[in-house]
Amino acid sequence: MNNLKGAAIIGQSGGPTSVINASAAGVFIEALKQPNITRVYGAAHGIKGILNEEFYDINQEDLKELELLKTTPSSSIGSVRYKLKPLEEDDSEYKRLLEVFKKYNIRYFFYNGGNDSMDTCNKVSKFFKNNDYECYCMGVPKTIDNDLWKTDHCPGYASAAKYVATTFMELRCDATVYDTPMVAVVEVMGRNAGWLTAASALAAYKGSGPDLIYLPEVPFDLEKFYKDVEKVYKEKNGQVIIAVSEGVKTKEGKYVPELVENNVAVDSFGHKQLGGTASVLANLLKEKLGVKVRPIELSLLQRCAQHLAAQHDVEEAFGAGAEAVKAAVSGVTDYMIGFERTYINGKYVCKYIKIPLEEVANAEKKVPLEWITKDGTGLTQDYINYALPLIEGEPAKAPLEDGLPRFAKLKKIFVNK
Amino acid sequence: MNNLKGAAIIGQSGGPTSVINASAAGVFIEALKQPNITRVYGAAHGIKGILNEEFYDINQEDLKELELLKTTPSSSIGSVRYKLKPLEEDDSEYKRLLEVFKKYNIRYFFYNGGNDSMDTCNKVSKFFKNNDYECYCMGVPKTIDNDLWKTDHCPGYASAAKYVATTFMELRCDATVYDTPMVAVVEVMGRNAGWLTAASALAAYKGSGPDLIYLPEVPFDLEKFYKDVEKVYKEKNGQVIIAVSEGVKTKEGKYVPELVENNVAVDSFGHKQLGGTASVLANLLKEKLGVKVRPIELSLLQRCAQHLAAQHDVEEAFGAGAEAVKAAVSGVTDYMIGFERTYINGKYVCKYIKIPLEEVANAEKKVPLEWITKDGTGLTQDYINYALPLIEGEPAKAPLEDGLPRFAKLKKIFVNK
Repeated sequence: MNNLKGAAIIGQSGGPTSVINASAAGVFIEALKQPNITRVYGAAHGIKGILNEEFYDINQEDLKELELLKTTPSSSIGSVRYKLKPLEEDDSEYKRLLEVFKKYNIRYFFYNGGNDSMDTCNKVSKFFKNNDYECYCMGVPKTIDNDLWKTDHCPGYASAAKYVATTFMELRCDATVYDTPMVAVVEVMGRNAGWLTAASALAAYKGSGPDLIYLPEVPFDLEKFYKDVEKVYKEKNGQVIIAVSEGVKTKEGKYVPELVENNVAVDSFGHKQLGGTASVLANLLKEKLGVKVRPIELSLLQRCAQHLAAQHDVEEAFGAGAEAVKAAVSGVTDYMIGFERTYINGKYVCKYIKIPLEEVANAEKKVPLEWITKDGTGLTQDYINYALPLIEGEPAKAPLEDGLPRFAKLKKIFVNK
Repeated sequence: MNNLKGAAIIGQSGGPTSVINASAAGVFIEALKQPNITRVYGAAHGIKGILNEEFYDINQEDLKELELLKTTPSSSIGSVRYKLKPLEEDDSEYKRLLEVFKKYNIRYFFYNGGNDSMDTCNKVSKFFKNNDYECYCMGVPKTIDNDLWKTDHCPGYASAAKYVATTFMELRCDATVYDTPMVAVVEVMGRNAGWLTAASALAAYKGSGPDLIYLPEVPFDLEKFYKDVEKVYKEKNGQVIIAVSEGVKTKEGKYVPELVENNVAVDSFGHKQLGGTASVLANLLKEKLGVKVRPIELSLLQRCAQHLAAQHDVEEAFGAGAEAVKAAVSGVTDYMIGFERTYINGKYVCKYIKIPLEEVANAEKKVPLEWITKDGTGLTQDYINYALPLIEGEPAKAPLEDGLPRFAKLKKIFVNK
């Protein structure tokens, strides 16, 4: 124990997941138990909520509703896409944060997000230290992209992967029901790392998945793509299902939507709007094959499908939040909670580890190239062995009321400024 | 009992659902028990499979796998979109059917589909009768559109509705997570009837659904649509979720994609490809509001999401198949199995009824106008009371293996021609 008494605050940042609320619940419930934590706050919309002194008083919430956060998708306290200005250019936001932390005597700071959030957490922590303000800052990981460095996997990934794999299995049943050709191009999230698209390989492993899988880790070659599709088209009587990451790009670095001319709609503000990867590829294939090609975007559904959340994921996301609190009150700062897997009697077990924020902040973990098949359109058994234990078991879904999920209902009482 | 000994065949037609296989299972398993049914066949791709003498020998399947069909989405024996030519123009296909039925001594015919399939079943039955071929023909309903006449609801609807309602609840959590404006236009299937889009009102009833719901039953007015959205946009800090049926059209009968010029891509075969309703509306709103608008299509996912299948739906779909067999062997012909609901001690109970095929064949049941709110953007409590019992309970999903669904694996052994 570090014996420093003070309030704790958590902020959440970046795209939500099915289990980011579970991590918030882990922080809230563990922090409420800690004798040295005098008050627990939830920042409204991450770092912006702290800058604006807009945070919720978690001590006034019902424990039952906080428990329900474990099975409530997305971020109940709000997320944000906001980067602090670089300290060397402008330190005013850092000063403002320090002012707010001092005003409310916040001594425990938890930031829940991906690489950028870990970078923010690290910078804030360093600034506080340099200004002699004692505050324990811990990162809590989250991302469906699964691209955080030095952790076996990230909270949010397994649930999204379970959704993607299940959905591809179902789509295979549906899309191949007629005796006429049917090509479907299914777009999965993941701008730089192909982890989530790779999850479609779990469906293929079960015999009911995509025929071809394209990850951003492999340079995308349109001519090769045509050949790949034509080959399967012939072999499978015109029934082809393709999984493609939104982030695939050519060796010249061009994203798929940039490969076609005129695929740029300009709105009234002059913003360029690129067509999606799936719809562009579907149009190109339609021309090439002369058959119906259906683009399908899994869109937001893949990151909020709580009804298919993976058990381990919910537990680990909650655990990551709780572990961060335990570490902070014992005097640890500037680390992110990470995961290490072990197998005990062949059974998957997740161990919590601590990774220096600095190491996580500026690195990105991609799918290892040796886990991608030589033809660049599938995953090896190594990936299957990696991913399958993460998604095992029944979904850890919200309790039902009238057959529909009962999500947490927080009071969300703002702390008086 | 009618004492007519012979084989039975089932064909499936039209867009699949999460439970159309459950109806096939009902027919198969009940038919295998019947002493007067000498052999059970499954037509490969509906009526086309019968015309081509391509059908599977169900007697050779394992009962365990047939049971698993209850929780396997889409049609394992294949569906078809094929209409017989009108009898008065060309009777050759009807003669061919009669020839095939005679060759295999098929005396029990079950056709599983929507309005068109009931029409086909009815015409085939009449032709057989006029040609003195004794054959008992029964329709088994299926459609996520829920638009079959004289039945309280249709197998397939409740599961798709449970998926739509759950997904809207999750999307609401996700899409409103930032403190910046976010408008989402979510497109739901239903070309003429708005039943499935209406299911989004169940999410709204639970406090986590769309703000505005547009059904094809109400003429679509673009100017009113802009006003509706702008009103919610102001009230809800720019966070608006809209549910729209793919089939909404103006009072002049134009579909949304036909409202904008140049929204027609022509492929190399000269086929017109209309942009989707959601993407067209999203682009229009983007221009109008000057903010990000995200189009989301629920696409095939809404009709094959077996992992959220409704319990009653699976049971009733199976029951409809089994009831059709029982009726046929007892001498009933030319009817479709339908549903009537009762409440026993306040508990929903579904009763099977028989509806003449002729009455179902050429009618369409739409959402009653009095169930749509006066402003045309929501559903009344009458709809909620109608739909809620259908989706109650835990999902009736497939057993899991490695955390993923274990769907039926049929041997699919073709009958020798």
